[in-house]
Amino acid sequence: MSPSPDGASGSPAGVGPAEVEAAAERIGGRVRETPVIALEPGALGVDAELTLKLELLQHTGSFKPRGAFSAMLAADVPAAGVYAASGGNFALAVAHAAARLGHPATIFVPEASPPAKVERLRRGTCEVVVVGALYDDALAVCSERAARAGGLELHAFDDPLVVAGQGTCARELDRQAPGLDTVLVAVGGGGLAGGTCAWYTDRARIVAVEPERAPTLARARAAGAPVEVEVGGLAADSLGARRIGAHPWRALEAWADESVLVSDESIRAAQRLLWDQVRVAAEPGGATALAALLSGAYAPAAGERVGVLVCGANLDPSVLA
Amino acid sequence: MSPSPDGASGSPAGVGPAEVEAAAERIGGRVRETPVIALEPGALGVDAELTLKLELLQHTGSFKPRGAFSAMLAADVPAAGVYAASGGNFALAVAHAAARLGHPATIFVPEASPPAKVERLRRGTCEVVVVGALYDDALAVCSERAARAGGLELHAFDDPLVVAGQGTCARELDRQAPGLDTVLVAVGGGGLAGGTCAWYTDRARIVAVEPERAPTLARARAAGAPVEVEVGGLAADSLGARRIGAHPWRALEAWADESVLVSDESIRAAQRLLWDQVRVAAEPGGATALAALLSGAYAPAAGERVGVLVCGANLDPSVLA
Repeated sequence: MSPSPDGASGSPAGVGPAEVEAAAERIGGRVRETPVIALEPGALGVDAELTLKLELLQHTGSFKPRGAFSAMLAADVPAAGVYAASGGNFALAVAHAAARLGHPATIFVPEASPPAKVERLRRGTCEVVVVGALYDDALAVCSERAARAGGLELHAFDDPLVVAGQGTCARELDRQAPGLDTVLVAVGGGGLAGGTCAWYTDRARIVAVEPERAPTLARARAAGAPVEVEVGGLAADSLGARRIGAHPWRALEAWADESVLVSDESIRAAQRLLWDQVRVAAEPGGATALAALLSGAYAPAAGERVGVLVCGANLDPSVLA
Repeated sequence: MSPSPDGASGSPAGVGPAEVEAAAERIGGRVRETPVIALEPGALGVDAELTLKLELLQHTGSFKPRGAFSAMLAADVPAAGVYAASGGNFALAVAHAAARLGHPATIFVPEASPPAKVERLRRGTCEVVVVGALYDDALAVCSERAARAGGLELHAFDDPLVVAGQGTCARELDRQAPGLDTVLVAVGGGGLAGGTCAWYTDRARIVAVEPERAPTLARARAAGAPVEVEVGGLAADSLGARRIGAHPWRALEAWADESVLVSDESIRAAQRLLWDQVRVAAEPGGATALAALLSGAYAPAAGERVGVLVCGANLDPSVLA
């Protein structure tokens, strides 16, 4: 796709390699370098060379601390601290980063968040408010309260600093597995997918994978701009934003090569296969990118070098039993 | 400890770096290079630089395929195929390796094996016989049947080829994290621990960790030779051999620096902390080496570079919920 120029940044899409590089410098030493595992030919029934980026081993069990630290370290955080709304993973990340950096944090979590995430959050030092059915409902309350209190509101994905931070996951993968042909990444609000596009630009084929029941990117591509969609399904707690973020959208518009949809059944199958064959315990959103390979939604060429971001592990592990 | 010369090998302990190197060449491409993750200073409450070797992501969920392939590829396997007894993990590994190499396999599993392991085994192509209370009981039946059928019996740990194969895990760690001061490794029959000693020799401090309720190495060290012990407890399904193997013992006698014991409670705590802080789902035997750090059974110096083999993941994940 053609880049959409943006005067505010040196990058045609607002966030590009330079912004990701700057984020990596900012957050260096604050996040884990998560490992990759190269699977044997034919693994998981896929005729390609698969490299899994095990970003689910990151602090708090998802990639989200990258963006949280990136935004928080670039800002002057007021005494009222940081405010954030999240399906759960960004909440955990903001709580973690705020605690490490010594800031108060107030977190708004929708009722759709799984108990495993909310319970983890309550163990920390932040204030937790469960409000609204889905992410966007919690976000509205968060914005209003942050403004009233004079706190710094951090957006889970629609912030160039957050997108750049999430892009550091792709930068790390690129160093660990140079020369990938293709990278598969899940899309919710688009932070990780946008950051992945921002890092790789045209150097790899980026396949953006969404649940059929949360097609924020697919609908945006059809409409030519972000639009509101109905969301639900198995991965709604992590990929359940109703609209793709404007900042991620610019990077995805510029550099995402394919947008594919996967069913809840194939997400569950990917989650089970990751456990059965690799002993990796991913949440549905964390297994969504892989689901595109298993379902055939994305069919690599024989021998194609494919990286898959396995990006979240905040699940009740008994679903794997 | 002083090496005990052994005329049958160039190594003073029967299996040494050359044998491990040869095993690595034999099994190359058959096993996964499993990743390591370097944790942040102070992680898991330990004041040392921890590197976890995530060998539990190996085929079949434990390190055992290394030894199984090592032994099978060095032998002329008869038409009757291979026979093995195992608490479960070696069984899965032999079944896997035999299937890949096209040999029939007959596997003897004690009643102590957890359903998660037996169920996985039954999904494969091998013949499964559940017999006897513990590992050694199943082993006796296996030996008798293998002799009668003319099959090749593979011992889960007391075989130089198996010890050398397991040592390839340490060799891989050494390349991924050069210059470790200390390596912590769990001991059951001693295959992995012996192989780790065989690779590192005197180049790192090897701390051999056992459950208090399965102290095969501690008792052997006290007696000056392998002796039979009572075994039980949380990790008995993977570390429940009644006597340390003669071949592992030679390597452990030569090169293990410390032998420490951990309680079932600290093994469970290590298992939970691995999940809570790193989203790694280890079985009790797989978390036993780490338990020595958490319990203080082994206390590293500040800044000590410590590698921990996290070596098995064949658990019912609902215990982590």
